[in-house]
Amino acid sequence: MKASCKLCGCLSDASLDGMARWLASSEVDLLEWRMDLFFRSRGEEGLEEGLSLLGAPSRLPVLATFRPERQGGAFRGPEGERFRWLRRAVEAGARWVDLEADAEDGLLEEFLGGGSSPAGGVVLSDHDFSGTPGEAELARRLERMARRGPRAVKLVTAARSPSDNLRVLGLVERGRREFGVEVIAFCMGPQGRWGRAASLLLGAPWAYVRLEGSSPSAPGQWTAREMRGILEALEGNAP
Amino acid sequence: MKASCKLCGCLSDASLDGMARWLASSEVDLLEWRMDLFFRSRGEEGLEEGLSLLGAPSRLPVLATFRPERQGGAFRGPEGERFRWLRRAVEAGARWVDLEADAEDGLLEEFLGGGSSPAGGVVLSDHDFSGTPGEAELARRLERMARRGPRAVKLVTAARSPSDNLRVLGLVERGRREFGVEVIAFCMGPQGRWGRAASLLLGAPWAYVRLEGSSPSAPGQWTAREMRGILEALEGNAP
Repeated sequence: MKASCKLCGCLSDASLDGMARWLASSEVDLLEWRMDLFFRSRGEEGLEEGLSLLGAPSRLPVLATFRPERQGGAFRGPEGERFRWLRRAVEAGARWVDLEADAEDGLLEEFLGGGSSPAGGVVLSDHDFSGTPGEAELARRLERMARRGPRAVKLVTAARSPSDNLRVLGLVERGRREFGVEVIAFCMGPQGRWGRAASLLLGAPWAYVRLEGSSPSAPGQWTAREMRGILEALEGNAP
Repeated sequence: MKASCKLCGCLSDASLDGMARWLASSEVDLLEWRMDLFFRSRGEEGLEEGLSLLGAPSRLPVLATFRPERQGGAFRGPEGERFRWLRRAVEAGARWVDLEADAEDGLLEEFLGGGSSPAGGVVLSDHDFSGTPGEAELARRLERMARRGPRAVKLVTAARSPSDNLRVLGLVERGRREFGVEVIAFCMGPQGRWGRAASLLLGAPWAYVRLEGSSPSAPGQWTAREMRGILEALEGNAP
């Protein structure tokens, strides 16, 4: 696998010990801590436990995500509460933070300015579970998000046909070329499965994978091992 | 693997016995008989031997290809000779015949009318070894070829960057939607390797694969076994 191909494991649930083990794992290159899922299963205690681990030395970098229900997450509470937890995650050492594309300007500014370490920053994300729009609408969404200045844009749709993948995957190069922004773009669902691997080959900074033993946090997600196998096969030495 | 996903093995060289075995093989669904490569290695005798096998009952369907040098093939002789052999292959029972996109109208008419069985016909092909043109030029090439009435169009380019794949793969759906023609479209070379699998998932009628023990007939080609493994992994049951 190319050095530039990174796997981001989705930590959807874990005990304190389990999370500590994943933070020291070599299975993935980055961990997305789904704070909304932790909160749903174990409340504030689960979050406090997780925060206590972010100070550990020589652990994997962490992407803090606290997804609200309207974007496919598990959190139904007030926005202020969500952002307080995200702030604490950044203060505790999360290198990346995922903010939804509808985040208010002031809030985005705060995280853009304060939360980013040299190698991290804000991922501005949008999840469309209803399908995959046409090329023009996708380009508009990409531009709107890229212009707000995040380090990376995450644009995810639901695949209804195999060719939906092509339109979405095209955003990876387009974002880099037109806006100088890293783009993570792929389709959810069975028809988007192959595109999750192609997205990396097209230059996306990382792909989201399921950690062994945990349930997928989005439909179509590979395990880290499956993804490595696929990438090795796809990139195998060509004759 | 979906029933509609077909593998076409490229028969680039084989003894009489070897070719007979491949014709009865279950490794692939279709055999491309590269008559130009047979002719280069064993002359007219090799071709006569091959022709003698096409009458065998219950064998794999055969696609007869006699590629001239200008399209990446091995034949440098006169066009008349090439077409005489192709005619004989069709008469002997080849179900498909591959004609280059620059084939003259009269010749194309002859094969369109005479050579096609209910389940086969002409594949009109174009190979661009210099790179991958932009979307508009690819669309023009597709339209020009589709309007000539073949059963399938084969449009192959050389990948210089990963995103070249997306433009070329987009032709598969476009051909079907706009012209009602089957399209086999993918990129050659290491950067096109994953697209050869994606092409099938996007609806191409078949993918060209290398037969075990033979050399690849184009750069980036998978073996039949590799391709089946990749497709099974890519189509594996999504969570």
